[in-house]
Order: sequence, then structure tokens, then C-alpha cells
Amino acid sequence: MSLKKIIAQIRKNRNFLVTAHVSLEGDALGSELAFYHLVKKLGKNAVVVNEDGLPYGYDFLPHADKIVKYKDNLKNINFDCFVAVDCSDLKRTGEVWRLNKCRKPVINIDHHISNDHFGTYNWIVPHASSACELVYRLYKAMKVPLDPESALCLYTGILCDTGSFRYTNTSAFTHKIAADLLRYNIKPLEIYKNVFGNYPLSDVKLIAKILSNIQTDPKGKLVWFEAGKELLKKYKKIYADLSDQVLTFGRQVKGVEVVVLFKENLGPKSEVHVNFRSEGKVDVNEIAKTFVGGGHRAASGCTIPGRLEEIKKKVLRKIEEKL
Amino acid sequence: MSLKKIIAQIRKNRNFLVTAHVSLEGDALGSELAFYHLVKKLGKNAVVVNEDGLPYGYDFLPHADKIVKYKDNLKNINFDCFVAVDCSDLKRTGEVWRLNKCRKPVINIDHHISNDHFGTYNWIVPHASSACELVYRLYKAMKVPLDPESALCLYTGILCDTGSFRYTNTSAFTHKIAADLLRYNIKPLEIYKNVFGNYPLSDVKLIAKILSNIQTDPKGKLVWFEAGKELLKKYKKIYADLSDQVLTFGRQVKGVEVVVLFKENLGPKSEVHVNFRSEGKVDVNEIAKTFVGGGHRAASGCTIPGRLEEIKKKVLRKIEEKL
Repeated sequence: MSLKKIIAQIRKNRNFLVTAHVSLEGDALGSELAFYHLVKKLGKNAVVVNEDGLPYGYDFLPHADKIVKYKDNLKNINFDCFVAVDCSDLKRTGEVWRLNKCRKPVINIDHHISNDHFGTYNWIVPHASSACELVYRLYKAMKVPLDPESALCLYTGILCDTGSFRYTNTSAFTHKIAADLLRYNIKPLEIYKNVFGNYPLSDVKLIAKILSNIQTDPKGKLVWFEAGKELLKKYKKIYADLSDQVLTFGRQVKGVEVVVLFKENLGPKSEVHVNFRSEGKVDVNEIAKTFVGGGHRAASGCTIPGRLEEIKKKVLRKIEEKL
Repeated sequence: MSLKKIIAQIRKNRNFLVTAHVSLEGDALGSELAFYHLVKKLGKNAVVVNEDGLPYGYDFLPHADKIVKYKDNLKNINFDCFVAVDCSDLKRTGEVWRLNKCRKPVINIDHHISNDHFGTYNWIVPHASSACELVYRLYKAMKVPLDPESALCLYTGILCDTGSFRYTNTSAFTHKIAADLLRYNIKPLEIYKNVFGNYPLSDVKLIAKILSNIQTDPKGKLVWFEAGKELLKKYKKIYADLSDQVLTFGRQVKGVEVVVLFKENLGPKSEVHVNFRSEGKVDVNEIAKTFVGGGHRAASGCTIPGRLEEIKKKVLRKIEEKL
């Protein structure tokens, strides 16, 4: 059993490099920090390295201040086991995988069905709600007691990846875990506000502007939004990842099957980030894959080089074929 | 113990009239219908009577089609026990309490701290997340097995009253119940969509338009939205109560203290419905009361005769005094 092999590796090694995917969000952060905390509780050493810095709103997470950015001076980094959580492939770590020059064993803990088993030791559970659900199981299997810090990390990841216990990945087991975690001084509303709120006014205005330009196909099965360069530049500070809120807003349209958000890259590159959500009928992982992206059946994304108008046409046509 | 006395009354009687509060929402509906289902499973008779008809989006609830409106012909109604769930006082049933002319015993099951113990038998648990949490406990205490119908009613009420497991009333026990209910073919996303989404496109567009005109005071502590007559008329079908979604959107602004929504009356009367939400510092119940309205410290409302622009000025000035 893969969980047993992973536990053996954790017990065997002393120094861990822990990472998660680029575009850090609640589950990536929660699972890497909960893993870090687990290793520390075992009296071992660990360092968390990410391609990006901490995204806006997540500084409440325990150990968030200890995250090291890949670009920082990492010459003297020393580890004997490389751990990737919530990554479907090694490239999802950004450049962080390059730190494993000496080809140390790689632990791969993930819940993406598209995971390519890049690890030396792989533990992939596609029906799990989140990577945090798996790290929770790790605590239990290793009999490492939970505490307020680990519970806060794990709860946050589950909250984010289940959209507050409402997405189809939410199971009875997910709620059982939440019930267990709530025994450790978890304040759901505070965490919810940290993660899904507390945005600068300019961000909230930007979201409202994007929403007000909601577009649909004639049947109302396909809903899309766009955030062009000009709009994004007009509102200077963009801390928050707006995608989730915009997509969620579109999902409340009666009869909708797929919601898409097109976001122009603000950098010099002419490219568009595309996020997909499906209500179940259409496999948006398949659609993202045709544009060299990926994700899950119900939530996926990709980045497509080119101009917004052309990309929009291409992507929407692809979805309409499946509707 | 009050729960035991209530169980004794349920066992003793044969015919039940079940009701909940006016302005029906998920927990009122879920708890009254789950209670109805329980009584039916015990081989007894019950009728559900409400002041209002079924609100938009709730026709998925089992037995929703059996709800009788108070105004319908109720001459031959026959019961030996009157049951009110989720009502802090008898007047919250609207006119329904008038049906108890023969002063049959009244069962009062509620979770509002303000409950005035109007029943012959009262079971009030202020720390419970919802009335549905209490009806769930009733099933367990009476050893009436749950089934997909009862689970669907109970889950819906808990979902609504906890705002999808995020409000401060969410406890470990709430999640334990959810874990149990999910064993009965509950589909969280579907229910969530029924309750919090599934709006006609025109409604969603209307909400987006209202949001896009977000306004704030210079400090960003006071956020307000307005829905003028013209805007409301342009989007013909208004099924949904938009207020909650609009106010929730405003609450995500960092540092906000009070959010207000001004909605012009669509009828011939020149008046404006005003809804308030407070993050804690300002008592919006006090503010609503100065305009002959009311509610709670953190959520209130009122209806003010006059024209939108003048009312806006008056109300905003009143709030600014308190900030």
C-alpha cells in the first residue's frame, strides 16, 4: 500500500523539502504547511519552498512566514527527501523541482485524477476532497496528534477545495474530518473571511466590473466572463485571486453547464489564462488538456498564447461542441 | 428533560398540525417537513400549514407540495397537537396560531435565544445551529430511522442556517450530523444550487448590475448599493431575494463596518426598502428602529416612505454618526 511506503520514507529520512503547486491557494498551502508541521512534530527538519510568495489573505496560516521563495538564496539547501503535495505533475511545482539535483527520493501526495505518478513514492487518491484530507489521514495513520496549528492548516485546505463543503468532492468523510478539526479551536467564520473576503475595495470593484459583463450562449448553458488588460490595469492592486468568486457567481445561473473566465496576462507576453468550471455534464479537464492545461473533471485551467478575442472564440467553440 | 416530554407528546397524540415562521426559508421548511415526515413514519397524521406559499427554489424538498396555505380553506382541519418549529414566539407563525382555537397542547422546538417559551412543551437549544439540528436529534432519540427524504430536509436546513457551515453557530456536532446525513444520497452541490443559486439569467444580471455600482464613504467603512425602480423594471423576472447576496458581496471589503442596500418599491407607493448588515461595531438594529424597522444587532431592515435620493442621504448620515 502506497500510504505505508510513504510513512516508511517519512520515518527513515531526517530532512525534508516540502512544496506544492504554483498559483498557491488554500489546499496547496494548507497541505504543505500541515506536512511541514507533522515532520517538525516528529523532531525532524523541513523547509517549505514555493515558486510564488504567499498569496493575499493567507498570512493567518501557521508557519506561513517560514515559506521560502525559490528565487531567494537557496544555495545551502539540504534535504534527503523531496515532498510535493497537491501537484498533478512535477512541473506544477514551478521551478522548485530543479532543486532536486541529487535525485533524492520524491514523495508525491495528491488527489488529482490527472496525476502522472512522478514520485518515487506516490499516494494518489482521486476521490479525496483535497490534499489536506490526505495529510489528515497521514497524521492519523502515523498517530501524530493534531493540535490547533495542524487543524487550522487542514481545515483551511478542505474549506477551499470543497468551496465550503458544497462541491461534489464533499463526502461524509470530509464532514467527519471537519468535526474532528473543529475540536481544536477552529473559527470557521474567521477563516472563511480570511480566505474568501477581506479584499481591498479596488479588488471588490474589479470583481463587480467583471461580473457586470456576464455573457452567455443563446441557451444559457455556457456562461463566460472576461478580464481584459485594460480593466485589470485600471484597478491597481490585484491581491486576490478573483477567479473563484467570478466563476462561482456564474454557476448560479439556472441551467448552466460550463462557466469560463478569460484573464489576459498583465505581463509583456500576449497570453490568456482560462479557468473552467463544469456542473457535471462536460469534462472540463479534457477541454483544458486540448490547450495544454489540466485539472479535474469539474474544475480546470490553462494558459493559451495569443490574443483574447481569438482565444475566446476557439475555447467557446470547443465547449459548445460538448454541450 | 424537555426533549423527553416532547417525545411523550408525539407518542401520545395522533393528529399534528405543524408550522414554522413567516418568511419561510431553508431551516423553517426543512425542520417542519422533517417533523411531518417523522410523524408520518410513526403511522400518524399530520398537516403542514404556513402563512406564506413555498418560496422560489424550494420545490425540491420532499412533501413541499403538501404544504397548506393558511388562507386556503381550513375549516375542517383537525388536530390534537400544535407544533411550531424555528419560531421564537407564536406570532412568528403569522396567523397560523389562530387555528388552535381549542387550545390543544403546543410543542415549541426552537434554537433562537430570544424564544419566549410560548409552548405547553418547550425544547429550546440556543447553541444548536438550526431547528433542523434539533429535529435530527428527535429522530435519533425516538429511534426513527433516517431515510433520503428526512436527510434531504434536515441537510437543507442546516446548510441554510450555517451559510454552508461557515457561520459561528457551526459546531463539531453540526459536521457530525452532516456526515451522517450524507449517507442518504445527499448531493451537496445540487442542494446548494437549489437554495443559493439556480436563478434565471435575468436575476443574475440584475444582481451583477447592482454590484457594479458599489459605493463607499471615503474611509471605506460604509458600503452601499442601490436598486432603483428603473433597474428593477428592466429585468422582468425577480424571483430571488437578491438582498442577501448583494449585502454579502459588500461585506468582503476590507475594513467595512456597515453594508446597506436601498431597494425602491416597485409598486405605486413611493418608498424604499433598506437592509443593513453590520460587522459588529455598529448596532444596525438601533439604526433600523429610528426608521420604524428592526431586526438584530448585525442584520436589520426598514421601509421608509419618500424618494430614494433623500432617504439615502438621511440613512447614510445616521450611520456615519455611529462610525
